[in-house]
Amino acid sequence: MAIKLGKNNYGKARVRLLRVVRQDGRHDIRELTLGISFEGDFEAAHTKGDNRKLLPTDTMKNTVYVLARQYPVDSIEDFCTHLVEHFLTYNPQVTRVRIHAEENLWGRIALGGKPHASAFLRGGQDRRTAALEATREGTAIRAGIAGLVVLKTTKSAFDNFLRDPYTTLKEDRNRILSTSIHADWLYEASDIEFGPLWHGIRQILLETFAEHESQSLQHTLYAMAEAVLSNFDRVREIHLSLPNKHFNLVDLSPFGMDNPAEVFLPTDEPHGLIEATLQRE
Amino acid sequence: MAIKLGKNNYGKARVRLLRVVRQDGRHDIRELTLGISFEGDFEAAHTKGDNRKLLPTDTMKNTVYVLARQYPVDSIEDFCTHLVEHFLTYNPQVTRVRIHAEENLWGRIALGGKPHASAFLRGGQDRRTAALEATREGTAIRAGIAGLVVLKTTKSAFDNFLRDPYTTLKEDRNRILSTSIHADWLYEASDIEFGPLWHGIRQILLETFAEHESQSLQHTLYAMAEAVLSNFDRVREIHLSLPNKHFNLVDLSPFGMDNPAEVFLPTDEPHGLIEATLQRE
Amino acid sequence: MAIKLGKNNYGKARVRLLRVVRQDGRHDIRELTLGISFEGDFEAAHTKGDNRKLLPTDTMKNTVYVLARQYPVDSIEDFCTHLVEHFLTYNPQVTRVRIHAEENLWGRIALGGKPHASAFLRGGQDRRTAALEATREGTAIRAGIAGLVVLKTTKSAFDNFLRDPYTTLKEDRNRILSTSIHADWLYEASDIEFGPLWHGIRQILLETFAEHESQSLQHTLYAMAEAVLSNFDRVREIHLSLPNKHFNLVDLSPFGMDNPAEVFLPTDEPHGLIEATLQRE
Amino acid sequence: MAIKLGKNNYGKARVRLLRVVRQDGRHDIRELTLGISFEGDFEAAHTKGDNRKLLPTDTMKNTVYVLARQYPVDSIEDFCTHLVEHFLTYNPQVTRVRIHAEENLWGRIALGGKPHASAFLRGGQDRRTAALEATREGTAIRAGIAGLVVLKTTKSAFDNFLRDPYTTLKEDRNRILSTSIHADWLYEASDIEFGPLWHGIRQILLETFAEHESQSLQHTLYAMAEAVLSNFDRVREIHLSLPNKHFNLVDLSPFGMDNPAEVFLPTDEPHGLIEATLQRE
Repeated sequence: MAIKLGKNNYGKARVRLLRVVRQDGRHDIRELTLGISFEGDFEAAHTKGDNRKLLPTDTMKNTVYVLARQYPVDSIEDFCTHLVEHFLTYNPQVTRVRIHAEENLWGRIALGGKPHASAFLRGGQDRRTAALEATREGTAIRAGIAGLVVLKTTKSAFDNFLRDPYTTLKEDRNRILSTSIHADWLYEASDIEFGPLWHGIRQILLETFAEHESQSLQHTLYAMAEAVLSNFDRVREIHLSLPNKHFNLVDLSPFGMDNPAEVFLPTDEPHGLIEATLQRE
Repeated sequence: MAIKLGKNNYGKARVRLLRVVRQDGRHDIRELTLGISFEGDFEAAHTKGDNRKLLPTDTMKNTVYVLARQYPVDSIEDFCTHLVEHFLTYNPQVTRVRIHAEENLWGRIALGGKPHASAFLRGGQDRRTAALEATREGTAIRAGIAGLVVLKTTKSAFDNFLRDPYTTLKEDRNRILSTSIHADWLYEASDIEFGPLWHGIRQILLETFAEHESQSLQHTLYAMAEAVLSNFDRVREIHLSLPNKHFNLVDLSPFGMDNPAEVFLPTDEPHGLIEATLQRE
Repeated sequence: MAIKLGKNNYGKARVRLLRVVRQDGRHDIRELTLGISFEGDFEAAHTKGDNRKLLPTDTMKNTVYVLARQYPVDSIEDFCTHLVEHFLTYNPQVTRVRIHAEENLWGRIALGGKPHASAFLRGGQDRRTAALEATREGTAIRAGIAGLVVLKTTKSAFDNFLRDPYTTLKEDRNRILSTSIHADWLYEASDIEFGPLWHGIRQILLETFAEHESQSLQHTLYAMAEAVLSNFDRVREIHLSLPNKHFNLVDLSPFGMDNPAEVFLPTDEPHGLIEATLQRE
Repeated sequence: MAIKLGKNNYGKARVRLLRVVRQDGRHDIRELTLGISFEGDFEAAHTKGDNRKLLPTDTMKNTVYVLARQYPVDSIEDFCTHLVEHFLTYNPQVTRVRIHAEENLWGRIALGGKPHASAFLRGGQDRRTAALEATREGTAIRAGIAGLVVLKTTKSAFDNFLRDPYTTLKEDRNRILSTSIHADWLYEASDIEFGPLWHGIRQILLETFAEHESQSLQHTLYAMAEAVLSNFDRVREIHLSLPNKHFNLVDLSPFGMDNPAEVFLPTDEPHGLIEATLQRE
């Protein structure tokens, strides 16, 4: 019986960075958490304990800080592009570099109604993400959103569904719909204004969620993804992963009360999970 | 050797609620998580297994939903007041009721620049809290904020501190100051406009953090608490618990680079923790 | 209106340590997470930004590592005692030191049925804890257990309880009882074999939970605490905090099936919470 | 521009189950958390809001409880096999079913040195996992381990590695090696004694970790995976994902002390991450 090493990769996870840019009394900050992963010629490290082609993961981490000093981290997509280019240029033993970045979003503290120049507060629940996969043939750039929690109290139904003997769910013409949006999309190029595009896509996802006459979370997912592809032609495909965060109407009839869609029990377990990719043909 | 039952309490934790108010096409939502705890005459339950004075914790949970149907949950302080009054009224065996509530904050999705009537997104990282402790003599109402994460890149020093043989920390005239504000304060009465006051206190905590010429986190904590007491006379005392979230300047000298306060390493472990109460004399 | 500084403290949280002892080819490890807190003469730091009496929290952290080099960390109670003595001896400005320690428990990997001399695996879910509170008058030493999750399928009932109009809970003569034991107890002295005692107390808590004919979680809590006080006379008082982790019997009648206590739904939200202290008179 | 629906799936996550088997006074329990996912003919649900081919995820959940009543849940692999067979049999619109199961491991409380018949405590940190992917052509069964945390204080080096200008890591001939084992492996058939095999694989992973003369975590990963494939011929391939949990030697030289590998700082951020698949040729 012969055994062979299959797909393998190694790298550094949870590399944290705060980058401050100071210009004329106005400061900007970006807080990132990065994961870096290499594929390449690492067979001897596995089978013989020969480390001569292993760049330490500690060096990957150092490189993040060195490049953060050299570049202002305008967008996470651009910063990650610098990183993959560096790693591919100086590491012939590496054939593929993957970088995942997650940005904690900070706003400015308001002072007398105006945004402060150097004091910040953490923004919403969501994070901005980027995921690059690079070889010497090219780089695929994905951007995304993680954990954007939304809820609507109108325009959501779920009925006329398939039933089997174990189905007890009631039809609902007026349910609460809530999810935590996890989206990521593939750009068709790298010469993109990543920041404005990200904000535009986030906004259209929110608006479509809000206004869609939902027959199911699948139905709304499709509408959200379609809206992004229809409005942003630099996006080649988009993937959405949407948990269905259930809010169960509380049965108050044991207490002689009705409950006209006013009192709900939010639950985390179990939850639905709806996922799909939409692409241009 | 005699053994006696000392202080004891029981109750229900993690009771979750979403309350929807629907008025003329405009919906409002409040999402709460509550904890309820009773003290009282429960000796026989402990020592003899006699449950005749134990109201089930399941009933406490039901009561939350019944009262949520009866009241619109304008503020968490008012809603918790209804709950403690109910429990004390109908449970002579109970001498003290404690309720803790935490509110997830939701904003409205913007549509064409205007807030949507029935679609929401989770707001910032922070939660609004309330903690009531009630006996038949009276009720102490505390309100608070949990998890309001802030950071400033100016006006923060830490120097001239005490040194001992194990001190290696360097003086710093220009450090990053960051914390996650946990505040709670005691109101001197119950006839208070809880909502507007909460927002006012949150704002002055933020502004004071932003503008204070900080010599230490203790120094800034005091300024923040003092600002609340000075501006809001319905607040009798305030307690702040502030982790010092360290952002360490990365040493780039091994790579022949300086680092003029641009590249930092955020860390969670270990962290400082500064706590104090300020009171009116 | 005058404002005064009330109770205040500061310190370092989440100080992590692994201590290795190497003796004749056999290694022992202890992994701790510590929190250290000072009370004392810190008014000027708060009100004037005068740091001259503030020992940096970074120094507290360094001191942990220095003392860990000097002492083998036989028990967390002994190690924390060295720490509080050090801090009180060298810091006249400090009036009270609190230290909380939590130990991750490691067992040995079995090799050919025998425990390995230098390879370990993380043990159960529970952690061993210690909490010291020290002034120049003396030190109170508490030990404890956190997160010891247990479950029994017999000998648990809950019936004959108080009912009100919102009570819907059914009586149950054969329910599942499950909790996550959080216990801490006060020793009456400091010259104690902390390790053996801790293991003895843990065992009697488990045995009492297993064998008790439970009429309620209060009833079982009392029996567990009483067993500790009855069997360990160095324990002056004990506090137990026991969440009631509900396992709901699934109603299979819609599918024409009975459910003779076989299929349950575990839930985390909401849960009961039962807490009490037992003391010697 | 045409848009098409690509890969999509939906299902239920975090379905929790406790199954009790009662035989002659001896009880056995299994606690599972399941995730179920369908692929199939769901285009109309997405594009038209036509739900007629959507079985509610609530029904998936109900089915778990119905089948748990019908079968004793001997092994998670067998129980998941029943589930996928049920879903494929009764749902012609479904082409692929994925089920992931995670089992919380419970041991028995010892009473007088003997395992209790009906009282349990949560075992180690690790969970047993299974992942099935089924079509009408066949089912791939993977089993696994999640979160098995191990540490060794001998037989671990990392040196002779690749260096670049940003490398500062020192060679280390005697470092601590620690990881949290995440393993999953593919069985070559379904007529397998899943329980005994799982325990055998877990044991050989532990033993190999303990005894291997490690030149890197890659080197040890390979040895662990090779040991499984060499000893268990029903395993076709195995994937290991191993975080390198760093324990940094604390520099005590500022305090005039050496540190002969006794005092370490455990860290979670950042960490290495080493992943590979080994297969039979």
